[in-house]
Amino acid sequence: MYGCPFLVRLRGFQKLTSIEEALQLFFDRLRIEQLKTVTILLHEALNRVLAEDIIAEEDLPRFDRSAVDGYAVKAEDTFGASQFKPKILQITDNEEVGDNQAKQVWTGNLIPKGADAVVMLENTKRINNEKVEIWLSLTPGENVSKKGEDIHKGEIAIEAGTRLKPHHLGLMVALGMAKVKVFEKPKVAILATGNELVEIGGKPSKDQIFEANTLVLSALCRELGAEPLDLGIARDDVNEIFEKLEFGLEKADAIITTGGTSVGVSDLVPEAVNKIGKPGVIVHGVAMRPAMPTALAVAAGKPIVILSGNPVAAMIGFEVFARPLICRMLGLKRKESRPVVKAKITRRVTATLGRKTFVRVRVFQKNGELFAEPVSARGSGIISTMTKANGYVVVPENREGLEEGESVSVHLFDNVEAADENV
Amino acid sequence: MYGCPFLVRLRGFQKLTSIEEALQLFFDRLRIEQLKTVTILLHEALNRVLAEDIIAEEDLPRFDRSAVDGYAVKAEDTFGASQFKPKILQITDNEEVGDNQAKQVWTGNLIPKGADAVVMLENTKRINNEKVEIWLSLTPGENVSKKGEDIHKGEIAIEAGTRLKPHHLGLMVALGMAKVKVFEKPKVAILATGNELVEIGGKPSKDQIFEANTLVLSALCRELGAEPLDLGIARDDVNEIFEKLEFGLEKADAIITTGGTSVGVSDLVPEAVNKIGKPGVIVHGVAMRPAMPTALAVAAGKPIVILSGNPVAAMIGFEVFARPLICRMLGLKRKESRPVVKAKITRRVTATLGRKTFVRVRVFQKNGELFAEPVSARGSGIISTMTKANGYVVVPENREGLEEGESVSVHLFDNVEAADENV
Repeated sequence: MYGCPFLVRLRGFQKLTSIEEALQLFFDRLRIEQLKTVTILLHEALNRVLAEDIIAEEDLPRFDRSAVDGYAVKAEDTFGASQFKPKILQITDNEEVGDNQAKQVWTGNLIPKGADAVVMLENTKRINNEKVEIWLSLTPGENVSKKGEDIHKGEIAIEAGTRLKPHHLGLMVALGMAKVKVFEKPKVAILATGNELVEIGGKPSKDQIFEANTLVLSALCRELGAEPLDLGIARDDVNEIFEKLEFGLEKADAIITTGGTSVGVSDLVPEAVNKIGKPGVIVHGVAMRPAMPTALAVAAGKPIVILSGNPVAAMIGFEVFARPLICRMLGLKRKESRPVVKAKITRRVTATLGRKTFVRVRVFQKNGELFAEPVSARGSGIISTMTKANGYVVVPENREGLEEGESVSVHLFDNVEAADENV
Repeated sequence: MYGCPFLVRLRGFQKLTSIEEALQLFFDRLRIEQLKTVTILLHEALNRVLAEDIIAEEDLPRFDRSAVDGYAVKAEDTFGASQFKPKILQITDNEEVGDNQAKQVWTGNLIPKGADAVVMLENTKRINNEKVEIWLSLTPGENVSKKGEDIHKGEIAIEAGTRLKPHHLGLMVALGMAKVKVFEKPKVAILATGNELVEIGGKPSKDQIFEANTLVLSALCRELGAEPLDLGIARDDVNEIFEKLEFGLEKADAIITTGGTSVGVSDLVPEAVNKIGKPGVIVHGVAMRPAMPTALAVAAGKPIVILSGNPVAAMIGFEVFARPLICRMLGLKRKESRPVVKAKITRRVTATLGRKTFVRVRVFQKNGELFAEPVSARGSGIISTMTKANGYVVVPENREGLEEGESVSVHLFDNVEAADENV
């Protein structure tokens, strides 16, 4: 049993499902199809998801090379050398380094034949054009990057399902690649519902509001690497919602809706979803606050995440349900989450027993410590609480709140102001 | 004095500057000009930097509205109501709620005239089409979002210099905006230098390597919201470097170079920069490891960050010097940094006294705790250490290393694998 058992017993319709169970039920009923792949230039591959293992076609480094600026030498010619008892070697420009010879090399240069170590410039002193003092006794291999020591030919350099960050692109270039096979971006259709809504640029009457959820959810999808598709606004009418959902299911890989769900009463979206086909709505009503009326559905084989129309609830619902869904759709090998930091909460917060409560907080740094200040709000419709906050804290079901000074885990959705400019 | 005083005394050229001092000297000599502004659609504004304060042109909410699904009532009509002693109210469809009347409202609906509170559905029971039981005693204003309680007309809703995240876009839509004035993206030209380098798609001879830094640095610039401009590869020739730098200074707001800097010896890039004009190179040689040969310059009034050619050193140098530079150029009001998490280091790490040492680590979660595993590497040329790592730890100048189990701050440059799917 979830939620407040007292109410559950009395009301009937309020059978709330825990977040964990809701996700489990949802993913159990959903068969996520692998996205098509597409080969693109490395220049365009930032943040895309790799569709196949990258196997090194040659060793990296491609040859023994110097790890420093200095002189390539035979290590044994330097044995016993020190600043106060330098060895003096003959400078050569030949391809091969002979006994008691040294050849100047820069970082990354091929180690010349005959040499097996490099002495750093700062451990040498050039006497003239022909001679150099060596101040250090080297061991063979010192300051040499051996062929293949970074990556061996045939080794998996990057695994399929990796989200490509700048450093991955660098490794692929180093391996001689110019293009890469990635998954196509999943298409996520977004439908807002509600008679009170007016589109951006429209003229609201005195009881109407601008529809903001679609743009927020589109941006959240884009940040994750999905491609949003705006289905516009449906009036509070099951048939209109049904038609727009059908269109979305045809064009996209998943749908997110907002509004038209309230657990048991004005459930236009769940009703329209169930008209499409089995299994339809799988979960309706989640033991969380805000976003309690969230529903999860599968229709025409595709996932539908049915979010509250409240802007804050819609965002929290996206974090909890749409984010892990999209991560799975993307083909990511590893789960991704928002960065989580530990911070001390600056004041007492109350929460609802029997529900996971999501508290918006502003994390800031003071004297090297992180603090989380709850952003107060009376309702989940208060969108400015999201712009004042940069993260959220989850209060578990069995807690009535958090105590002042308690250490909490904050999921960051925006930057924390940096205390130091550099490191 | 920095670096190893022993070497400094003996070598002369090795006057290393601390990171903090280097940044200070650099920014002291640099006058960063504010970028031009451009007005764009909100749909295109994600991650752009706001160029002017957003002042609310009307109250938000625009009218008193319901924060929940339920019945709008006069609070005094519910005084004393409970589940076991319900009040029975008459359901109305009129615009105005009279005494002992209730009007059904959904979240976001206008509060009808006469009503001053909303009772949640779960605290009611509909008897028939005409009557409803109210189970809760309400106070006036309960579950009502008052006009202007989110943001008042005339209030600054979002400050200039804010990087626009999804929630900021949502707030702007709610305020009736369709477009927004943002700063143009700063243009950062990137120049690689070195005879050993071959461009992507080229054919390297047996002692050449693919040039990977440009793509990595371009991607890092893009992540920050700057627009990279690829200047290609310059041979190890002062004149060629000079010409490409001049071109870059004409086209871009800043330049980043890699290679051709090694503190006192093969300093082709600093030499070419100094040919352009005063003040030229401001700092050369930083007390850090890797990236010691980094130089910072100002020429033709524009900043030039001169990075090592080693891929890892170039990336660390970018983090420490180019990142704060670009953040300033972007016009950000608040400093931004990588997310920082505390983790326990899994084994002993050695570092260089007198330098800040940047240790690449892989952060992972185990039993709810974060651990940082050092990614071993012999040289800063080992690019796979960056793909195996997801963050770095900074060992201060006065430490010879880190002890196993020590708690460290990790700057994350990639995701930490999430332990739980949801929260």
